[in-house]
Amino acid sequence: MSTINDIAKQIKTDSFQLSCLSNEVRNTALKEISRALLSNQSKIKEANKLDLEKAVSAGLAAPIMKRLKFDGQKLSDVVAGIESLISLKDPLWNTLLERELDAGLVLKKVTCPIGVIGVIFESRPDALVQIATLCLKSGNSAILKGGSEAANTNKVLFDIIHDAGIRAGIPSSFLTLIENRSDINELLKCHESIDLLIPRGSNEFVQYIMSNSKIPVMGHADGICHVYVDCDADLQKAIPIVIDAKTQYVAACNAAETLLVHKNIAAGFLPALKDILKEKSVILKGCEETRKIIDCEPAEEKDFETEYLDYILSVKIIDSVDDAILHINKYGSHHTDSIITENQESAEKFMLLVDSAGVYLNCSTRFADGFRYGFGAEVGISTGKLHARGPVGLEGLVTYKYKLYGKGQIVADYAEGRSSFHFKDLK
Amino acid sequence: MSTINDIAKQIKTDSFQLSCLSNEVRNTALKEISRALLSNQSKIKEANKLDLEKAVSAGLAAPIMKRLKFDGQKLSDVVAGIESLISLKDPLWNTLLERELDAGLVLKKVTCPIGVIGVIFESRPDALVQIATLCLKSGNSAILKGGSEAANTNKVLFDIIHDAGIRAGIPSSFLTLIENRSDINELLKCHESIDLLIPRGSNEFVQYIMSNSKIPVMGHADGICHVYVDCDADLQKAIPIVIDAKTQYVAACNAAETLLVHKNIAAGFLPALKDILKEKSVILKGCEETRKIIDCEPAEEKDFETEYLDYILSVKIIDSVDDAILHINKYGSHHTDSIITENQESAEKFMLLVDSAGVYLNCSTRFADGFRYGFGAEVGISTGKLHARGPVGLEGLVTYKYKLYGKGQIVADYAEGRSSFHFKDLK
Repeated sequence: MSTINDIAKQIKTDSFQLSCLSNEVRNTALKEISRALLSNQSKIKEANKLDLEKAVSAGLAAPIMKRLKFDGQKLSDVVAGIESLISLKDPLWNTLLERELDAGLVLKKVTCPIGVIGVIFESRPDALVQIATLCLKSGNSAILKGGSEAANTNKVLFDIIHDAGIRAGIPSSFLTLIENRSDINELLKCHESIDLLIPRGSNEFVQYIMSNSKIPVMGHADGICHVYVDCDADLQKAIPIVIDAKTQYVAACNAAETLLVHKNIAAGFLPALKDILKEKSVILKGCEETRKIIDCEPAEEKDFETEYLDYILSVKIIDSVDDAILHINKYGSHHTDSIITENQESAEKFMLLVDSAGVYLNCSTRFADGFRYGFGAEVGISTGKLHARGPVGLEGLVTYKYKLYGKGQIVADYAEGRSSFHFKDLK
Repeated sequence: MSTINDIAKQIKTDSFQLSCLSNEVRNTALKEISRALLSNQSKIKEANKLDLEKAVSAGLAAPIMKRLKFDGQKLSDVVAGIESLISLKDPLWNTLLERELDAGLVLKKVTCPIGVIGVIFESRPDALVQIATLCLKSGNSAILKGGSEAANTNKVLFDIIHDAGIRAGIPSSFLTLIENRSDINELLKCHESIDLLIPRGSNEFVQYIMSNSKIPVMGHADGICHVYVDCDADLQKAIPIVIDAKTQYVAACNAAETLLVHKNIAAGFLPALKDILKEKSVILKGCEETRKIIDCEPAEEKDFETEYLDYILSVKIIDSVDDAILHINKYGSHHTDSIITENQESAEKFMLLVDSAGVYLNCSTRFADGFRYGFGAEVGISTGKLHARGPVGLEGLVTYKYKLYGKGQIVADYAEGRSSFHFKDLK
């Protein structure tokens, strides 16, 4: 039996065939995949039913059950995602720069696939479809490892997508499913074959991947997002935004975990907010100043470092927009943070100095999402600063190479003054 | 005394002040630095003389001595580099995307500094000037650790640049010099303060950095560059290109280490090449087929994996452009590889499928360099595929953030169908 390392090596070797496929061939395959998903709807539902039954007997929590469920709605969503992916411009072989360095010596910077991408994700079978199709559109080979809770659904979805791709003329190695949890550690060692890892899951899980592989990792370990209600905030906007950021989907990485409130408006704002949050069953944890205004649990230092992913919100009263920025840069996770203010100067200061992938004015942190940004789909959200930051769509799945077209030029002629560069951008 | 961790934390906190400086302020500081370097020429020479004397008594090799020397020519070069840097467009706060997601909800993707960059480099004092000025132009704080051989020169250059920057109104934390080798390991642990590491040095040194830090690393461990002379090559071009790629500067990462020759032209090409390489004192190591044509040392498997950085060239005869591509992708380091051919189809195939930062047609691999690409300067060459690939200039030193401007929008309205996105690109 082949080891994961052998498999990854073979995928790497074969991956270059994918690079040669035209956008038309890749789009035709995406159409075939979309058709195949729709025509195999009952098979998918059956497999999903098995996973859901297992989850019930294992007593899995409601949020996991919700993510695990792959119903007609989720199928429509992923099919709509594929359609929008087909309509997106080809991300490959675009010329980013074309520069004549000297007569007959032309440099081109062109986009190309990254190569082989390993994606490790938990419990959401719709993520498998999104990731597989994003990788195909961008000419990358994908190695997928899904959560064991969704094993049956994942296997059926993989087979449908893989078969459809092959029918449309895509090399078989474009998509590989790994089913054993023990294979993850083998995968992490394949830094010679795998170009990028995208882990999607819990903080501990992502941290583990980041600490145990030489392969570059794109993603986020946690999402400690803030809403800062400034002294110049319109409270009519602030209340619904805080409610939405906290409660619209508590298990999301872009949900707010901490509310910062300017001292000048705290007394007017917090009691009203508390009443509405109570209706939504949100538990408040406040700093000392907060607890002078409203009755709530005390927030400790560690609360401000915690991603609750639950109906809990920590609250801190602060003195200025500068203090809000300092707090966020210290305790946040560089994900998404929002300021509520009518003061343009404070807004721009916040958006300039908060060191996060998303800096928002007068809207909910929950907008941080590839679909909502109009990217068609996303492979995940990155809190790193290199390559791709924030929601990662097709653009984050390509790199570039420099092509230099010469007619026999050598560096010695330039170093010794017989020739010289003139740098003329042709594009 | 402050630990490296404390120092790095303070630099991180202060780094946001740098973000706020206008391009004009940053350029004025660059001008001041350029002036200060010129007016302190004798001080720099004195310090460099000390380093050179120490190097002589330590018996350092000639290539190191050459890199270590900071004479009038090198000073003119770095000053010219600063002038060209000043003339480059501001890399910060450029809008890469401006999209209306819905009425009154506008997404902007804007460039911004990465933050704090740690650069660890060996023996070349001119690198200190280049890196410090590139980081300043791109609004990044830099922590520098130079080679101990150049300690005196580095200290003087640092003082001149640091003082000039402060005189021009740049916060003191923009540049920090670390002088003890033992501090490197402390620096590698500062993943909460340092956003990016750029190591420049030997293979072992770069590998060590990559394996011992959670901080993302940009750079290259080795440069095993190839020249492939195709059956359709113009040998009048091939010979000077091979000579240049191998001998113009053997210690460079973009010098060729392996020559691949198509079997059909080997008998006509290799004897002529051998004579010229002999004049340049290049030792050839050939595969079995090569040794049937010319007399040379045998090349073993490990030769094709070796970066000689010396007057040695391994030679292999191969059957086709496909085999050349396979060999390069297997043994190369994804740096820069060149094909010599008049056959357009073979050229395009090679440039499509060779998995390297630079893929060249009919020119020397030695062109892989930020200056020669017209980037003004470079912080290094990256063989990674994420963020920046190939020679890294200003562009590789910036990231971006998403700014979302709302008027009170919440996600629940979109999730529950009361509002919908319309995605209209404004720019």
